[in-house]
Amino acid sequence: MGNFAACCRGFWCKAKNPDVRVSLPAVCFVWQIAMIILFGLFVRYDEESDAHWSEHKHENNITSDIENDFYYRYPSFQDVHVMIFVGFGFLMTFLKRYSFGGVGFNFLIAAFGLQWALLMQGWFHSLDPADGQIKIGIENIINADFCVAGCLIAYGALLGKVSPVQLMVLTLFGITLFAVEEYIILHVLHVRDAGGSMVIHTFGAYYGLTISWILYRPKLNQSKNLSGSVYHSDVFAMIGTLFLWMFWPSFNSAIADHGDGQHRAAINTYLALAASVITTFAISSLSAKRGKLDMVHIQNATLAGGVAMGTAAEFMITTYGSLIVGFCCGIISTFGYLVITPFMEKYMKIQDTCGIHNLHAMPGVFGAVVGAITAATASESVYGHEGLVNTFDFKGEYAERTPAMQGGFQAAGLCVALAFGIVGGAIVGFILRLPFWGDPSDDNCFDDEVYWEVPEDEESLPPILEYNSHMVGKNTDMMSNFTVEQS
Amino acid sequence: MGNFAACCRGFWCKAKNPDVRVSLPAVCFVWQIAMIILFGLFVRYDEESDAHWSEHKHENNITSDIENDFYYRYPSFQDVHVMIFVGFGFLMTFLKRYSFGGVGFNFLIAAFGLQWALLMQGWFHSLDPADGQIKIGIENIINADFCVAGCLIAYGALLGKVSPVQLMVLTLFGITLFAVEEYIILHVLHVRDAGGSMVIHTFGAYYGLTISWILYRPKLNQSKNLSGSVYHSDVFAMIGTLFLWMFWPSFNSAIADHGDGQHRAAINTYLALAASVITTFAISSLSAKRGKLDMVHIQNATLAGGVAMGTAAEFMITTYGSLIVGFCCGIISTFGYLVITPFMEKYMKIQDTCGIHNLHAMPGVFGAVVGAITAATASESVYGHEGLVNTFDFKGEYAERTPAMQGGFQAAGLCVALAFGIVGGAIVGFILRLPFWGDPSDDNCFDDEVYWEVPEDEESLPPILEYNSHMVGKNTDMMSNFTVEQS
Amino acid sequence: MGNFAACCRGFWCKAKNPDVRVSLPAVCFVWQIAMIILFGLFVRYDEESDAHWSEHKHENNITSDIENDFYYRYPSFQDVHVMIFVGFGFLMTFLKRYSFGGVGFNFLIAAFGLQWALLMQGWFHSLDPADGQIKIGIENIINADFCVAGCLIAYGALLGKVSPVQLMVLTLFGITLFAVEEYIILHVLHVRDAGGSMVIHTFGAYYGLTISWILYRPKLNQSKNLSGSVYHSDVFAMIGTLFLWMFWPSFNSAIADHGDGQHRAAINTYLALAASVITTFAISSLSAKRGKLDMVHIQNATLAGGVAMGTAAEFMITTYGSLIVGFCCGIISTFGYLVITPFMEKYMKIQDTCGIHNLHAMPGVFGAVVGAITAATASESVYGHEGLVNTFDFKGEYAERTPAMQGGFQAAGLCVALAFGIVGGAIVGFILRLPFWGDPSDDNCFDDEVYWEVPEDEESLPPILEYNSHMVGKNTDMMSNFTVEQS
Repeated sequence: MGNFAACCRGFWCKAKNPDVRVSLPAVCFVWQIAMIILFGLFVRYDEESDAHWSEHKHENNITSDIENDFYYRYPSFQDVHVMIFVGFGFLMTFLKRYSFGGVGFNFLIAAFGLQWALLMQGWFHSLDPADGQIKIGIENIINADFCVAGCLIAYGALLGKVSPVQLMVLTLFGITLFAVEEYIILHVLHVRDAGGSMVIHTFGAYYGLTISWILYRPKLNQSKNLSGSVYHSDVFAMIGTLFLWMFWPSFNSAIADHGDGQHRAAINTYLALAASVITTFAISSLSAKRGKLDMVHIQNATLAGGVAMGTAAEFMITTYGSLIVGFCCGIISTFGYLVITPFMEKYMKIQDTCGIHNLHAMPGVFGAVVGAITAATASESVYGHEGLVNTFDFKGEYAERTPAMQGGFQAAGLCVALAFGIVGGAIVGFILRLPFWGDPSDDNCFDDEVYWEVPEDEESLPPILEYNSHMVGKNTDMMSNFTVEQS
Repeated sequence: MGNFAACCRGFWCKAKNPDVRVSLPAVCFVWQIAMIILFGLFVRYDEESDAHWSEHKHENNITSDIENDFYYRYPSFQDVHVMIFVGFGFLMTFLKRYSFGGVGFNFLIAAFGLQWALLMQGWFHSLDPADGQIKIGIENIINADFCVAGCLIAYGALLGKVSPVQLMVLTLFGITLFAVEEYIILHVLHVRDAGGSMVIHTFGAYYGLTISWILYRPKLNQSKNLSGSVYHSDVFAMIGTLFLWMFWPSFNSAIADHGDGQHRAAINTYLALAASVITTFAISSLSAKRGKLDMVHIQNATLAGGVAMGTAAEFMITTYGSLIVGFCCGIISTFGYLVITPFMEKYMKIQDTCGIHNLHAMPGVFGAVVGAITAATASESVYGHEGLVNTFDFKGEYAERTPAMQGGFQAAGLCVALAFGIVGGAIVGFILRLPFWGDPSDDNCFDDEVYWEVPEDEESLPPILEYNSHMVGKNTDMMSNFTVEQS
Repeated sequence: MGNFAACCRGFWCKAKNPDVRVSLPAVCFVWQIAMIILFGLFVRYDEESDAHWSEHKHENNITSDIENDFYYRYPSFQDVHVMIFVGFGFLMTFLKRYSFGGVGFNFLIAAFGLQWALLMQGWFHSLDPADGQIKIGIENIINADFCVAGCLIAYGALLGKVSPVQLMVLTLFGITLFAVEEYIILHVLHVRDAGGSMVIHTFGAYYGLTISWILYRPKLNQSKNLSGSVYHSDVFAMIGTLFLWMFWPSFNSAIADHGDGQHRAAINTYLALAASVITTFAISSLSAKRGKLDMVHIQNATLAGGVAMGTAAEFMITTYGSLIVGFCCGIISTFGYLVITPFMEKYMKIQDTCGIHNLHAMPGVFGAVVGAITAATASESVYGHEGLVNTFDFKGEYAERTPAMQGGFQAAGLCVALAFGIVGGAIVGFILRLPFWGDPSDDNCFDDEVYWEVPEDEESLPPILEYNSHMVGKNTDMMSNFTVEQS
């Protein structure tokens, strides 16, 4: 028994080997070839992107090409695309020596995930019953980007501590879970969540936090010297922050209803974000000696208003309602960075590199609750009859649903998102603990040297010192492994 | 009497205390709560962003959602939004140790200002007489961004020398003045200024320059070691430059007339900007030993063509007219950096950190003059009857106005902008001289250490030296204060 | 005879003088004034950007301003604009001490080239036979940006080795050649190439490579210490990469047909780019010790899928077809960086700083072939009758053309692009070898000090050493000149 335990421990704790020369290309090739085959079997253009569009126009009395959904949604799509690749990517460049990994792995898993998302979401939402094939158009590629966002949020908790192969596994399962969760929330429960407070942010954040909890690294402080920022890496991160902040109105309005739906979603998000900025600066200044602002807060908590408007942005939440949401979220999120993240790391063994609990989890839950309340209190006097039906899609089998019932379903949707995030994260976390994924050792975290050819900087003289500290770290690690295996 | 003078001097000149731990959060909270209350009382969705849009469509025989103003203006709005936050923000990161302040305070005051702008501009332009409430839509949030731009321009003159609390006061008054000035120019005088050569640039620049003149710091050269750039900070600033440059056609066309108005404004601005680049490179090279180019010119003067097309972009200024405007402005603006800024600093006691006099003031005035001339020479043969009426909005009570009269009113508009900038700046400047705003001492300017937690750079070894020089600076300052108080 | 040869060699090899104080301003001024005159003579607004638009609407029964082409294409135009200035510009900031030159000269020649492109393309494509004038609108300014892209690609091969004056000459001839080549391919041969695999990428790349071959610098390794990147310059380059990658769907769809054409082009490009990323990471990891990724590959080869979809994006290439194209191009392009670029430098005397052969030449040719095959295999069953006619523009004098014939013409188009690139490049290369263009000496390449006022970096201490190595380099150079002249 003791032998077995020792053996197990040896299996789980053996010296880390972050060589991904076989595993990364293997996963990439196998996967990409599988994608090509599956797309060949299942994915076709929809009627608006197919060359038969001109015939479709005649049949449906569409008078102008401008009625093609492309022109309603393409500008928003491009903004969302920027958020996914530059926004999330550069937000994660803040670490002094993990900028390549931050922006580079974000690039890899987003490009990887969006293909799988087109398939998974397609099977659930865009399957043409006539021929059993997925018909894709502009809305599908926006949704694929949204789906990827969930996994990129999860990456935020794990930044610097996982290998690219682990990230691909995380993404593969994350997209799958997302598509199922989204189907249950949006279609089974008929919940409205255009900007994804529940579907994207709550799910993604709890998925990542649970994985981070399972991959807890007790000796992570061996990498402490690389876990902070330098001056210019903080400026790089501001590029990510600002593109996320500016384009969040497009995120929340991208797949909202044509016309007033998109229009209102953009305005509400714009207002909530502005209020978040003000309260973030306030709390950040209030919490520090001499009122000095902390870049971590400015880079992250300013965005919380956008997260929290994900559900309610398309509702008639009113302009001051949006400001109140942003006001609260800036406070909650900054407070999270000051108090909750250190607490979680110390007492709950959750290491959350980017603080996604503060930026996505709490504001996401808050936004879901706001959405449920806003939906429950909707009325014909505010929306007009037609407006109410359109906004909540009270049509077909849902024609009898009342706003109050809708509020209840919205709340149920939040529970589904939480459950999928936590249970899914637990399962995937255990898979990621398998010892062959090539993750770095505790003293090698937050370091691009592990997975990247890093140029020698003439400008930084003390690489010798740094290198030595690494060697020392490695020796210690080997010795600790030796001890474990002896026991 | 001598006592009183000494007391006064003591009051105005007492040792600076840049601690904003109480004042910054207090202003943020009070202000944000006031905004929520005022929005609750006054701001509602307009007919295109309200859920009653579907009913509005029926009533007005609008056949398609694509006719919602959102689809005419949202892409331009997002471009303008990028200019405000990334464009202005990163343009101000060029200082070697004030990048956090450049991009961060820009973020704060833009998010702060746009809320106040929605209210102030709403009261003047979008008040619904039926219920006394402001109805907002996409055009209002573009205008709010425009309004904020005026204050960000003013910030350019003061970069590195003021506290965030001062910036918020500057913004609060700036937005207020802007809204009044804009009302007088656009509504009372019925002047056309879609891209704001007068309303935004001339006003903003003279507002900032006047404040800078009143806040003159005779001992600013104590911060001389931080008043320049480093290699990478200049590259960061180019991000700002390029996003401003690329999206300026959207800026000048964002609120122009639907159809040919927006189309022509974009093309004219595109051309003027291209010509500015060429003459900026020419003058920059001509002025230096061995023809070496100066990044300051490239970062700023290349944009002058966009500023100068703010008024005339939507007119039939012709394509070569646009090129001529850009040609002249590139020369004027670069010349300003070479000659006028040093002159103003030395002889007129105006310290203009970003050179807004060259980028906004001179090209703005130039653009207003160009606009007046273009308007005065407009004719039905060039515009067509309907085109002339639409372009200059010669409708209703203005149906009798001739192009020549319009030219005169355009010139009058410039005077209003100048007057508001200078007089408003003088008043606000004196308010900002009050000694409790937390501005830095003369030897502490251009330094993020004052208001930000700055990460320690391993890469830069000599912080000890730097720190010492600060200490020396501080001692000198205290001594000089001591002397003043004794007298 | 020996005397003449020595004299010639002396003429061609005399000590380089990179002083552009006279030549750069002279070219800029002469050229910009010429542009103003030519625009005055030839360029007018088209019917959609002219103030007569409202009359045009009545005459053509256009019911809404939204039918103005501006609203179909402006969002794509802005994305293309970002690719040209930020995308290409920042992609070229990767060198440790040539970021100013990378982004700055890119800015100069793009602004310079687009004016000339409007004229040259206008004469060939947009000449109004009624009055002999060029009528420009949104599509023209997109095409001008496209045209400039060809020259910026060529700049990639020469980065760090040429003077700004040489770049302007290169651009002047490049735009001219481009316009003729494009006219032959698109109009004479009636070939489809919306995203320019042939017209832009193949032409631009071979134009640049041929020039680089003629300007071969045998002693370029004297600048070896500056030919690499540093940590932060690689992150800056990722800004360029990502904006190119994200907006490539806009590039390929910007001038595609309204409706399904633009819609499909965007989707196909989106998919091909995603697949490129996966195979680029795979090959990059596979090729290095311990699977370490190389930033050069990630920055460049990930984009190859977009290049290769330039021709076929608007066709019914199918979604899996797009993935296959991206799959192949990621492999080809990364392989190029690993094997072909070093081979070309060593054995073919082609020094290709940015590896444009891998990013533009090979994927461009590949894309042209893919386009020819896709066109040749098109059928009415896939496109529908009307769809086939619209997609390939089988109208008027081309009404009888079959898909198979179209495939042949597409292949002919590729040959034209190659011929123009290589022959044009050879001619321009010899012009650029003239000794008065101010290019840097072999030991001065990749160094911003030559053409820019570079701020002193406090952070980098060893400029003294660097300066010395320059001096040594210069001495050697002078001595070798001396030897040559003596012989």
